[in-house]
Amino acid sequence: MIQRIAIVGTGLIGASVGLALKAGGFTGHIAGWDASATELAEALRAGAIDEALPSRDAVLNAKADVYVLATPVLPILDWMQALAPVLGEAQLVTDVGSTKLAICEQAARLYNLPGAATFLPGHPMAGKESGGAALAEATLFNGATWLFTPVSDEPHPYEAEWRARVAGFGAVVRDLDPEPHDEVCAWVSHLPQMLSTALAALLQDTFSSDADAMAAVQAIGGRGLRETTRLGSSPYSMWRDVAMTNTKPIAETLLALEQRLAHIRENLRTPELREEFATANQFRAKR
Amino acid sequence: MIQRIAIVGTGLIGASVGLALKAGGFTGHIAGWDASATELAEALRAGAIDEALPSRDAVLNAKADVYVLATPVLPILDWMQALAPVLGEAQLVTDVGSTKLAICEQAARLYNLPGAATFLPGHPMAGKESGGAALAEATLFNGATWLFTPVSDEPHPYEAEWRARVAGFGAVVRDLDPEPHDEVCAWVSHLPQMLSTALAALLQDTFSSDADAMAAVQAIGGRGLRETTRLGSSPYSMWRDVAMTNTKPIAETLLALEQRLAHIRENLRTPELREEFATANQFRAKR
Repeated sequence: MIQRIAIVGTGLIGASVGLALKAGGFTGHIAGWDASATELAEALRAGAIDEALPSRDAVLNAKADVYVLATPVLPILDWMQALAPVLGEAQLVTDVGSTKLAICEQAARLYNLPGAATFLPGHPMAGKESGGAALAEATLFNGATWLFTPVSDEPHPYEAEWRARVAGFGAVVRDLDPEPHDEVCAWVSHLPQMLSTALAALLQDTFSSDADAMAAVQAIGGRGLRETTRLGSSPYSMWRDVAMTNTKPIAETLLALEQRLAHIRENLRTPELREEFATANQFRAKR
Repeated sequence: MIQRIAIVGTGLIGASVGLALKAGGFTGHIAGWDASATELAEALRAGAIDEALPSRDAVLNAKADVYVLATPVLPILDWMQALAPVLGEAQLVTDVGSTKLAICEQAARLYNLPGAATFLPGHPMAGKESGGAALAEATLFNGATWLFTPVSDEPHPYEAEWRARVAGFGAVVRDLDPEPHDEVCAWVSHLPQMLSTALAALLQDTFSSDADAMAAVQAIGGRGLRETTRLGSSPYSMWRDVAMTNTKPIAETLLALEQRLAHIRENLRTPELREEFATANQFRAKR
């Protein structure tokens, strides 16, 4: 049984993991650390963690059974490197990073070797457009898909329990290889993010010099505008690492969308527009 | 006081207008007509109208004080032409069409002349991604902006009452000239519609030949994908007329978005991406 968990990065996702673990009946000890003292204090105040680790060294010495890396992707890669030499094969490290290929490649080099800890790459498809422990919820993962992209054939003794706890969060657990993971996520997550950022940035640049026009845009825009620009609130700090570690798939989906928009633009007055709406209707009918 | 209202087109918007009028205390008579007998019967059943007009001739002979044209834009233009010769200056015609320039140009030719009825162009910024009287609600316009693009300087005797009733729906009434109306609506409504259609159609074409991959897309996609593709459910029947009557502004906004997406694509690994996120964050902070 898992007794001690360390959550590295107690922002929205990390703190929600802590709250969900407790809501799901985990009675062991949860330690937490965050690069921001504010986030860490908020996670402790919210009861997402039992103990705030005071330093990076304290994380390395936390002697947890399971480490949950819940920072953006590049710091996850850094923590994987820092933790590998100090952990042993009794310990399981998992993460919640948005891209998996770079993490899995590094896991294959540093983990799952004789005497080394096991790494189980994970990715909950949940979040909010704004981050922070203050927005954390025990129910954040309820109904969401939680992907794993295993790199080891031999399951670690804690793996089955961790998967069961994640399922206990209300998440639908699904396994995928890292490469298709990053490609599918480019389509269903990274492309919607980039187009929402593009639309919001375009509207800002087009209207921000004219206060009356911006007021009209904000007043007139309805639910459609709110929803298509909502992800425009997302923080660069997280998405920089996604763009850095999944550049090619994201670039490919962006190019495909640019071409599709051009096709619609060239066919606003032709029956081809009917085909586009019919095809889009088909996609939505499956949901 | 307005005694008799005729709603021409009793789909989602027309039937919701009927329900909102009654919820707002209108005690006069509401007649309705729709090209679809099913929509018309549903509007009558829901109590959105008191009487179902059996034919186009019955609409022309309805002797209403106020006509509300609530069809797509091209049929609105047809009805304006059909009604003008049979109505007199005691009568007010208004509409809920999504584009206003073509309607206002025609109104200037056919209405607001000596002996002719008055036309008051209107546009509630409300709707759902699926149409139909069955989805109509008295509260649909609550909190939404209801735009008017007046073409006459002399207000018709019924105009003040109609505006007051619309405000009574909970809508925020705002006047705009037709040209800026169509340009702003291209940005805040037509562009989000086209990009949502483009994204949904692109995903359908990319994944529909592989049932497993499509299942993964549908399972893995979260709230961001749902929201950015939601408008992909919208019916071509309505949007064809928007595209036909606002082609140039829509094409311009589409081209600008294509260029913005290309800029992001070319800067996925540069600090320029930070600027895009910062600019998008600014737009969202105003909401």
